[in-house]
Amino acid sequence: MQNLIFTNEVKAAIERLEHDGAHNITVWIADVNTARLLSPAPPHLITIGDGDENKTLETVTRVWDEMERMGVTRHSLVINLGGGMVTDLGGWAAATFKRGVRFINVPTTLLGAVDAAVGGKTGINYGGLKNEIGAFAPASDVIISTCFFDTLPLQEMKSGFAEVLKHAMLSDHDEFLRLLDHDFSAPINHDDLLERLRRSVQVKVDIVARDPNEQGERKALNLGHTVGHAFESLAMKRGKPVPHGYAVAWGLVTEAVLSHLLLKFPSEDVHRLGNFVRDNYRDFPFNCDDYDDLLALMRHDKKSRDGEITCTLLTVIGDYRIDQTVTPDDVTAALDILRDQLGV
Amino acid sequence: MQNLIFTNEVKAAIERLEHDGAHNITVWIADVNTARLLSPAPPHLITIGDGDENKTLETVTRVWDEMERMGVTRHSLVINLGGGMVTDLGGWAAATFKRGVRFINVPTTLLGAVDAAVGGKTGINYGGLKNEIGAFAPASDVIISTCFFDTLPLQEMKSGFAEVLKHAMLSDHDEFLRLLDHDFSAPINHDDLLERLRRSVQVKVDIVARDPNEQGERKALNLGHTVGHAFESLAMKRGKPVPHGYAVAWGLVTEAVLSHLLLKFPSEDVHRLGNFVRDNYRDFPFNCDDYDDLLALMRHDKKSRDGEITCTLLTVIGDYRIDQTVTPDDVTAALDILRDQLGV
Repeated sequence: MQNLIFTNEVKAAIERLEHDGAHNITVWIADVNTARLLSPAPPHLITIGDGDENKTLETVTRVWDEMERMGVTRHSLVINLGGGMVTDLGGWAAATFKRGVRFINVPTTLLGAVDAAVGGKTGINYGGLKNEIGAFAPASDVIISTCFFDTLPLQEMKSGFAEVLKHAMLSDHDEFLRLLDHDFSAPINHDDLLERLRRSVQVKVDIVARDPNEQGERKALNLGHTVGHAFESLAMKRGKPVPHGYAVAWGLVTEAVLSHLLLKFPSEDVHRLGNFVRDNYRDFPFNCDDYDDLLALMRHDKKSRDGEITCTLLTVIGDYRIDQTVTPDDVTAALDILRDQLGV
Repeated sequence: MQNLIFTNEVKAAIERLEHDGAHNITVWIADVNTARLLSPAPPHLITIGDGDENKTLETVTRVWDEMERMGVTRHSLVINLGGGMVTDLGGWAAATFKRGVRFINVPTTLLGAVDAAVGGKTGINYGGLKNEIGAFAPASDVIISTCFFDTLPLQEMKSGFAEVLKHAMLSDHDEFLRLLDHDFSAPINHDDLLERLRRSVQVKVDIVARDPNEQGERKALNLGHTVGHAFESLAMKRGKPVPHGYAVAWGLVTEAVLSHLLLKFPSEDVHRLGNFVRDNYRDFPFNCDDYDDLLALMRHDKKSRDGEITCTLLTVIGDYRIDQTVTPDDVTAALDILRDQLGV
């Protein structure tokens, strides 16, 4: 079980964990941006390039080499400080080094805090595919804080917010409605946001606890992602990447439409969601000429089976159905309605 | 929990497992020798070079690439057919591909059957260190059979037998004495050997079940290996590798001596073991000039802490103590006595 710590006293929380374990060495893994948060620099710091394009086997081998050079053992502690790229890659590097060194995650982005840092998925991109190589290897502890968010670009906040929205859609209609009232231009209320994160992360934690290795129920967390990953992959292939959460936001609308078409999910909630996404996640870069490419990508999803397209869908907010097979015609219709909703 | 199948009807057992799971693709991983056991060749076969020198990241990336090309998904099945090198590397490749494809192990060597294939340790050599990168990832099923052993070189049989001996030393004095009567020149009695394997593997399975990730008790299985790994690593560094089990046999004697020195393990059993090892595991390639190198390697063992040398030791056959710190002087004395026992 992962130990989750919600706090804005991050430094004190880390020091407590460090002293708990009698570790011989503490190694920090950070990217070129988050490394600057560490001042003075700690004695054992591994800095990696930022961005998904550095989430590669080459970067991992460099991390392994540095860990070797630093004398990391099974009794060491690794602290991953950064967004999802750092916690995914750093987590996998730690989990595989000597078959497993204890690591803790300190997510510095909203997306990392509510998604990547929690739940044990680690890994790297490989062969042009996202997260193609990796493991289910939970951090022993995750320190979740909003203190890094004041300097987070708006686009990053929105990207993370899509996952917060997803968790509400899986669990709680009132929370869903509250989130749709969110105003990204207002300054961050830290206490309020930390409480909201606590609720959001709990949705994920409860689902993961029942199915850590994604044999079944964990696929609920894939809501919005069968379609969302296709958007993200296609944009990346074309050298014009979109933020993960934007792809997820568009995917959530598309899959809400599919839920309406196939499971009578209320059209009212489709429209509410669609309007929020139209207002906050603009610049949808696809049109109907892209449908074939998108459908092909959906068929190749890690969770797909026999080339069928499967999604997690909803009957209503809070009631999900995993492993729903959808036809290319269903998806095509839903993409048309998405574009209509977004006004593109 | 791993499903262990002891049988000499291997083909039928594999077919049953294949049909159980409704897998879309079955991929075989074999080395250049064990691939020849498959006739006709199955449609999806990945052949890797044999020997520890191929247990590398380069080989794993080739396996991942081939799995990608074959269209392997999370609903596929990987069958590792070979010795410990194949089950270690193939297991890790499967466990990391898309964060985990089901795999089964079919060990073709005695060493693989009683050790590598069972218990979930997977991985590769890295940076000149054995099994430096990997994971605890158990095969869903292991098919243990003696049918491959008739053509196994005597040296391979002896190598595996050292681990059988280790399991007896951890559990059962009568079995220990029976094993010391073993005559390697006699033809294999398959029913008898399969039964012996069943008993031997059970010792490991019981210990692993109580501590899968080697936090504590699993270190019992390290008996003979703190010293044995040092022999193995030094021999490899010098370009004159020794079989793993030979290094373990010498390590078992050395650690039996340490057990006698520190925990009053009966000298009678030290001598019985020493005589058996002298008669069957000759050609010990080290002398007193090698002690410093060997001690340095022991300090760098994956399980070591703060540069101390720790071993699993015995008070008597069947009663082990993990995490026993030994001094360089203790080890030096034990190595002298080992060489004396071996008559070198």
